[in-house]
Amino acid sequence: MIKAGIVGGTGYTGVELLRLLAAHPDVEPAVITSRSEAGTAVADMFPNLRDRVSLRFTAPDEQLLRECDVVFFATPNGTAMGMTPELLAANVRVIDLAADFRLKDAAEWEQWYGMPHRCPELLGEAVYGLPEMNRQLLREARLVACPGCYPTAVQLGFLPLLEAGAVDAGRLIADVKSGVSGAGRKAVTGHLLAECSESIKAYSVAGHRHLPEIRQGLTTVNGAGVGLVFVPHLAPMIRGIHATLYAVSRQTEVNWQTLFEERFADEPFVDVMPGGSHPETRSVRGSNTCRIALHNPPNSDMIVVLSVIDNLVKGAAGQAVQNMNLMFGLDETSGLELIALMP
Amino acid sequence: MIKAGIVGGTGYTGVELLRLLAAHPDVEPAVITSRSEAGTAVADMFPNLRDRVSLRFTAPDEQLLRECDVVFFATPNGTAMGMTPELLAANVRVIDLAADFRLKDAAEWEQWYGMPHRCPELLGEAVYGLPEMNRQLLREARLVACPGCYPTAVQLGFLPLLEAGAVDAGRLIADVKSGVSGAGRKAVTGHLLAECSESIKAYSVAGHRHLPEIRQGLTTVNGAGVGLVFVPHLAPMIRGIHATLYAVSRQTEVNWQTLFEERFADEPFVDVMPGGSHPETRSVRGSNTCRIALHNPPNSDMIVVLSVIDNLVKGAAGQAVQNMNLMFGLDETSGLELIALMP
Amino acid sequence: MIKAGIVGGTGYTGVELLRLLAAHPDVEPAVITSRSEAGTAVADMFPNLRDRVSLRFTAPDEQLLRECDVVFFATPNGTAMGMTPELLAANVRVIDLAADFRLKDAAEWEQWYGMPHRCPELLGEAVYGLPEMNRQLLREARLVACPGCYPTAVQLGFLPLLEAGAVDAGRLIADVKSGVSGAGRKAVTGHLLAECSESIKAYSVAGHRHLPEIRQGLTTVNGAGVGLVFVPHLAPMIRGIHATLYAVSRQTEVNWQTLFEERFADEPFVDVMPGGSHPETRSVRGSNTCRIALHNPPNSDMIVVLSVIDNLVKGAAGQAVQNMNLMFGLDETSGLELIALMP
Amino acid sequence: MIKAGIVGGTGYTGVELLRLLAAHPDVEPAVITSRSEAGTAVADMFPNLRDRVSLRFTAPDEQLLRECDVVFFATPNGTAMGMTPELLAANVRVIDLAADFRLKDAAEWEQWYGMPHRCPELLGEAVYGLPEMNRQLLREARLVACPGCYPTAVQLGFLPLLEAGAVDAGRLIADVKSGVSGAGRKAVTGHLLAECSESIKAYSVAGHRHLPEIRQGLTTVNGAGVGLVFVPHLAPMIRGIHATLYAVSRQTEVNWQTLFEERFADEPFVDVMPGGSHPETRSVRGSNTCRIALHNPPNSDMIVVLSVIDNLVKGAAGQAVQNMNLMFGLDETSGLELIALMP
Repeated sequence: MIKAGIVGGTGYTGVELLRLLAAHPDVEPAVITSRSEAGTAVADMFPNLRDRVSLRFTAPDEQLLRECDVVFFATPNGTAMGMTPELLAANVRVIDLAADFRLKDAAEWEQWYGMPHRCPELLGEAVYGLPEMNRQLLREARLVACPGCYPTAVQLGFLPLLEAGAVDAGRLIADVKSGVSGAGRKAVTGHLLAECSESIKAYSVAGHRHLPEIRQGLTTVNGAGVGLVFVPHLAPMIRGIHATLYAVSRQTEVNWQTLFEERFADEPFVDVMPGGSHPETRSVRGSNTCRIALHNPPNSDMIVVLSVIDNLVKGAAGQAVQNMNLMFGLDETSGLELIALMP
Repeated sequence: MIKAGIVGGTGYTGVELLRLLAAHPDVEPAVITSRSEAGTAVADMFPNLRDRVSLRFTAPDEQLLRECDVVFFATPNGTAMGMTPELLAANVRVIDLAADFRLKDAAEWEQWYGMPHRCPELLGEAVYGLPEMNRQLLREARLVACPGCYPTAVQLGFLPLLEAGAVDAGRLIADVKSGVSGAGRKAVTGHLLAECSESIKAYSVAGHRHLPEIRQGLTTVNGAGVGLVFVPHLAPMIRGIHATLYAVSRQTEVNWQTLFEERFADEPFVDVMPGGSHPETRSVRGSNTCRIALHNPPNSDMIVVLSVIDNLVKGAAGQAVQNMNLMFGLDETSGLELIALMP
Repeated sequence: MIKAGIVGGTGYTGVELLRLLAAHPDVEPAVITSRSEAGTAVADMFPNLRDRVSLRFTAPDEQLLRECDVVFFATPNGTAMGMTPELLAANVRVIDLAADFRLKDAAEWEQWYGMPHRCPELLGEAVYGLPEMNRQLLREARLVACPGCYPTAVQLGFLPLLEAGAVDAGRLIADVKSGVSGAGRKAVTGHLLAECSESIKAYSVAGHRHLPEIRQGLTTVNGAGVGLVFVPHLAPMIRGIHATLYAVSRQTEVNWQTLFEERFADEPFVDVMPGGSHPETRSVRGSNTCRIALHNPPNSDMIVVLSVIDNLVKGAAGQAVQNMNLMFGLDETSGLELIALMP
Repeated sequence: MIKAGIVGGTGYTGVELLRLLAAHPDVEPAVITSRSEAGTAVADMFPNLRDRVSLRFTAPDEQLLRECDVVFFATPNGTAMGMTPELLAANVRVIDLAADFRLKDAAEWEQWYGMPHRCPELLGEAVYGLPEMNRQLLREARLVACPGCYPTAVQLGFLPLLEAGAVDAGRLIADVKSGVSGAGRKAVTGHLLAECSESIKAYSVAGHRHLPEIRQGLTTVNGAGVGLVFVPHLAPMIRGIHATLYAVSRQTEVNWQTLFEERFADEPFVDVMPGGSHPETRSVRGSNTCRIALHNPPNSDMIVVLSVIDNLVKGAAGQAVQNMNLMFGLDETSGLELIALMP
């Protein structure tokens, strides 16, 4: 059994990770830390885990974490980078669900996250945890930076287009709608039910932190810079991301459907739907699947990609477990054979 | 592997049954019938099942069903009673998720359901599928009538009180709130999102079909007639039942918390929370658990029981699988170790 | 024009009061205070008021308030009692939407609200602002304590029963469901959309602050003490209260429907629906109406009253305006001829 | 008083029209027809209108309608064109809230709506009822075609850009999110709360009926053909449309904010928010306002316009009343001074 530690388990990615790990056949959740909740039984905070998780939150204790095989960080940005070097030195694998190791350029990271980076020397080694892009590297990784939720949905949708050089990489648009759980469990007025239910709005159009991350990923795939407009929206629902992606075709002969089907043929967690489909976010609720459908709007040279994920699973905890499976040589789908809850 | 057939799989109990059976280690979903959807792939109607269920709906075909070990009816009321005698004769076990075999009194059934009963001779044999009441009978049953969703939440909450004779059985009140999926997948104006979201209302106060079912069960437990007022409400959410139960105490010395904890100590799917808790329906969303909490309101001789279930799991498909596990001698929790999706 | 001041306008009752007063033909909103938002335009915080309300929040300034004809307190409990004596002394009428003057017994108030009362000498003078009970007193009042949202829905539903002495006053039950806006605009984890959407739960069963207030009102009507069990629930919606009230009939000859219709015949804001109706909270969304329907459940001597209001209108700001209309001799419905938004 | 008739008042635009007309100072709702509901009191179907609208539905009766000053059609597509010629001949003004007179080209209409047009000779006379484009024509109109909900939000957002020739008209994108009430009150499985709550999806990407309508309007403004990709989405809420519009700038010197502010300076129902704002659909819920905000995403030559309306008010019934006000020489805002319900 793989001994897993979780740092910062009081948020939504934390409880989702516990839901997955508690049912994983090869993992034993061994430690879960929270400075503010030390002593509290996890199941007292998250009653869905009653009778399933008997752990209590402990104060962050490096010794206990060093005894784990893998430590997940489900913390606010800036925490993982403080503890990672020591854990790696103790031969513990690290999987960060926050943003600390997502950008390769420390200066850009510091600009977007507004704090100095404490271990820029690890940014090169950290593997960006999108298995559909980096599977081989992940198998050998000591340190994995799990992608953000928006970047997962957006990159998976653009990937085949850019790899094939089939669209104008300078004119990409990602209009993305997210459920409110993407904002975390922090008490914020704007995320009260009475504030954001029965309404929809765009936000951070002037620049969202996931923009440089997406741009970095797409640039790598494209082999050159990309032009991307990214507009996130807050949708009145708990879970789910729906990315509506627009690109201008550079080729008239492409069979877009075949392009996507072939690209993702062996991917256990990407489902290319039949042409003309309209994936619903609920069809992936609670599951690790990304569902994609393709459209050529009438009288247009544009290709529209619809890409949906559960932001807490494929967009966070599920992808983290998928990465862990790769890092430890397990079956990539182990513990992730979840069927979405529908209705 | 147990070969399972499902008659009428296009509703919510049907798709939920498929979600559970597709992941059950000892069951193979072999046939699923729908007159209207014959030929359609199940996963085309329910995309959450893509890559997980490859069955197509077939026209109801008694021969195929007779080759199953067990047949589930996830049909409108009145269908199961037409096919059950023949299936039993072919040594197929039958689990009805509809109401056909729930009442012991054919006349009462006909009054509430507005049609003649086609096999009243089986009403005596049919076992009412609430394992917490009838576990031994279920192990031997050929024909099981799964309880309705409201009756499950209400009976589990009143059970210990009536068994102990601790309350006035003539003054029971069940004020129950249900999500909209309890009404099924039929296109009805009143269940459109634009009609029932952002609103709550009582309905059928003059008499809901689950009333005689609950009364029958409570009378059996009580050993004498009960007086019950049952007021169902439609709450603006998809899944979940919250029963708020009121009873007048007849004894002053009872430790209600202990009474419940002892009664349900060995029940894998009933969780008695600590005194003073307030269970949320989301804490059981997607799981087969019933969570219960007890309260003595201030300055009152009343006991208030809060009982929550997921109407599609413990209130329907999950309970059906639990019953199947008992009927076939499997571990009662097999395929049902689901952790609720939260948030 | 009546010059109106609002103290503490950054919460939901504050913005709702502004929505109503901005459209009131006889009122001019003159001052709105908020210590934390001083200087901010009200419409910057509440964009629905853009082009309709040009006021800015000011720091609490007693001089400005003393120049008003009426001051509304839409503040947390404990604020109004600090400023009311001075305002009354300056001949300003005071309408408190919080709880400071709701209870007649200072000791009881202090017990439930956990602070000393700063002007217990005014508790006797303060008129409880339920016009359907206290219309004449309100016409002469200098100081009005607006009822809580739960107490409004519950008392209006029990009123005719107790006045007629037609039920057992010792066995009243109020099972009440509220939208989340009832909890205010404070950032609290439990009221995040991701926490309370798609779920329902009871809360404060051991004792909610509205319990003594309801008990006081019902006792006054009854002429003797009442026994009341009050169980509030949090329903996954923004606005609306649905009270389901249970009482044991003491008489067999009562025509309940007539009793209610006659009692409320002249009430502009109480609508007794035809027998057997099921009022929906959405049918009063945004309006000052309380809709009531009556039921005699089958085989029972109980009477069930269904009573719905919009917690922010008849349960708060609308009732405050109704009280103001009475205090200033205006038409009681002035500015309140709102039709509910449906769907 | 203007005598108003409503044909087909059982849907959402019908009840919303009644809500507005019942409070309009210069209008008397005189007739409301519904073949299926003839004899039913309107307030029995829509309890929010109890005590406010005493009309009963009548069978469609041309004589009664001919006695009106204006007739609104809140019917399915295809009904208005059957009755309009006769009404116009009787000097009744006609305002169609459906699509019958929205397109100028009968052939295109027939292709998108799948039926022959019964009075193509009126298509030229019919005025497209977007006051911000056609105010003068509307003052003289006998027959007005009210825009669809999507076209209202989209055209108002693109209008200033195209009028100024400031963007590439061949590369317009409208990514639009709508509440479910936009689909009407018809019982359709896909719009059940249990199907479309807690989920978001695109639909009709291959071609929505509002596409030719938007294209026609933008072409008129542009003076030449436009290239438009239009992707509608179903958002899990009752009311509201959020259009996110993308255009490529052709000029570098434009002050976009000023362009919009000046264009809409005299418009009573278009609110250009300060630069960098993010309008929420709830800020217009129940009101006739369109709120717009502008953004220049970082490192991009694109302009992003955010445009929100209430689909049932500015997108349907409110705009119809606004048009009526213009046609009858009333104050354009009469009966429309509604403040959005928030929260």
